[in-house]
Amino acid sequence: MARKQPELEIDLRLRLRRGEDIAMGPGKADLLEAIAAAGSISGGARKMGMSYRRAWLLVETMNRAFGQPLVRAKTGGNSGGGAEVTEIGLAAVEAYRRLQREALRVVERGLPGLKRKLGKSRSSL
Amino acid sequence: MARKQPELEIDLRLRLRRGEDIAMGPGKADLLEAIAAAGSISGGARKMGMSYRRAWLLVETMNRAFGQPLVRAKTGGNSGGGAEVTEIGLAAVEAYRRLQREALRVVERGLPGLKRKLGKSRSSL
Repeated sequence: MARKQPELEIDLRLRLRRGEDIAMGPGKADLLEAIAAAGSISGGARKMGMSYRRAWLLVETMNRAFGQPLVRAKTGGNSGGGAEVTEIGLAAVEAYRRLQREALRVVERGLPGLKRKLGKSRSSL
Repeated sequence: MARKQPELEIDLRLRLRRGEDIAMGPGKADLLEAIAAAGSISGGARKMGMSYRRAWLLVETMNRAFGQPLVRAKTGGNSGGGAEVTEIGLAAVEAYRRLQREALRVVERGLPGLKRKLGKSRSSL
């Protein structure tokens, strides 16, 4: 049968808060990965299309919220100004992504039931 | 041991989209319940602290996104201008709340593992 409307889609956003701070969310996870790939906060910021200042503030918020550095200045070498994502930072991103995936999977499993329930009188749902 | 920081908390927001429209989300679910309780769109809007126009637009978006009315004018009686949440509307809210709860439960189950992983070197997480 012809489908007139696009499908119902799931939009699930997970954030971890500590008090007023967002410790981890979609944007911060992306930023950490961008910093890890670029090897610097400025490179990560560029990749994300955000200012260095904004990236730096997000990093500062994460470091404070987790009570330990997720990103820190690279020591040694001659990279001057480089930064690296710490083991804790990588673990935090990985765990966050996993929680998000698991939550999404649960909703995806439940969605057909919702569509069936709502679609009794309509075939387009 | 003394806890210096508030706990890590989960902030999970589920939305169902159809194309550009948000078919259902936290605000729309609250609004539907407020309309159901008040018996009118204007009463529901008041309860939500939003304008009638905004509530009406949200209702219109939902009705369009689900392809059938979730809210409709009350027929008969002398209530003049009253509105009711349809069976489909009630089912949609109920199913949405359930999906949200189930997703939250999954994340809540996973959070202690994340805290343990991150907390190896810190006791405050």
